[in-house]
Amino acid sequence: MPDEDNARLTLWTFDWVPEGPRGFVRDLRLRWACEEAGLHYQMRSVPFEDRGPDHLTHQPFGQVPFLTDGDLRIFESGACLLHLAEKDASLMPRDTGSRAETMSWVVSALNSVEMVSVPWWFVGLASPPENPLEGWLRARLDSLERVFEGRDWLTAGRFTAADLMMADVLRLPWVRAFGDYPATDAYVARVCDRPAFKTAHADQVAFFATADGNRARRKEDGG
Amino acid sequence: MPDEDNARLTLWTFDWVPEGPRGFVRDLRLRWACEEAGLHYQMRSVPFEDRGPDHLTHQPFGQVPFLTDGDLRIFESGACLLHLAEKDASLMPRDTGSRAETMSWVVSALNSVEMVSVPWWFVGLASPPENPLEGWLRARLDSLERVFEGRDWLTAGRFTAADLMMADVLRLPWVRAFGDYPATDAYVARVCDRPAFKTAHADQVAFFATADGNRARRKEDGG
Repeated sequence: MPDEDNARLTLWTFDWVPEGPRGFVRDLRLRWACEEAGLHYQMRSVPFEDRGPDHLTHQPFGQVPFLTDGDLRIFESGACLLHLAEKDASLMPRDTGSRAETMSWVVSALNSVEMVSVPWWFVGLASPPENPLEGWLRARLDSLERVFEGRDWLTAGRFTAADLMMADVLRLPWVRAFGDYPATDAYVARVCDRPAFKTAHADQVAFFATADGNRARRKEDGG
Repeated sequence: MPDEDNARLTLWTFDWVPEGPRGFVRDLRLRWACEEAGLHYQMRSVPFEDRGPDHLTHQPFGQVPFLTDGDLRIFESGACLLHLAEKDASLMPRDTGSRAETMSWVVSALNSVEMVSVPWWFVGLASPPENPLEGWLRARLDSLERVFEGRDWLTAGRFTAADLMMADVLRLPWVRAFGDYPATDAYVARVCDRPAFKTAHADQVAFFATADGNRARRKEDGG
């Protein structure tokens, strides 16, 4: 939970983003993990519009999120999630078999599903007659549908960090609008119905709404 | 090193692949890690042309590699590499700061670099007038060039699992042929000059050459 006074954990995001990505900026993955595990954190921001050397020192590609945990510095939402997950069994099961499966599914969400779904979306923005990534995305989503037809959670018979990452990748509206995947729809709805997701989502939306207000005031002040 | 008698670690790959991907199939990442860390392993294979339920039980997307380590089952080259890396400080530094950076860079190779370079290549196969992913790939490679202008290794002042994964993503010929990146070229050459890479690469090429021979014999036998 956000806690300015007692947090040694700092999550970094942009100081502002346009309205479209609000609720989807990847700092949500870390806010959500903190809510699930009851970890206290504070938010800090880097400029969205001018990604300077300070930002690049923490994140070489000028992305967010990144985090600091005492002296530790970690970037990439996947690496940050794995770091946070180690702090609590609610996210990372302690038995070695489920732990190995959780790791496998977290990485597959990033490197087998998101690696296709985000470039597919990006290529689609140019409205080509055919999107060359469409068949690849369909194959991935077909495979996942078979998985979710057989189980409610990816591993350990319960929610883990694997579900957090996979659901965050799959919940994008344009991914949900791709084809007919009832078991996956139900899975995404199940994971996103968790109070921790709702809190993290509301906190991110409020954060950027406040940023909007601050921006308007700076403009009024002639800044 | 390959060791049929003493290995509890089994790496799985395809029983055959066409000539093009030989030397690039992702089981190389795991062979390489085993060579770096002196881990004994055995290779097993699943059919390339008929990806059945046994394969999908271990790897839900019908990909390779996956591994078994005693009772543990892990899939995704990234998750498998992180598992192997934990076994030896040569791959995963023990100090918490370098460890956090190694994790960050491994994930960035998968989710920030390969997530762009592989779809860019795939889209390019269709020879579109413009590849919509080109600017994105250029931005990633520009960022990395600045990193490699300042250091020989990604973290810890020495080779780690982060370099193994990043170099394996960057060494693809069509990625190396993209633009002018002398510091990155030197980095990739430095990492791929390691004896462990050369052994792993030669072993993979020999493995698929033997598979070719077996295939030809089966055909002669009328199989």
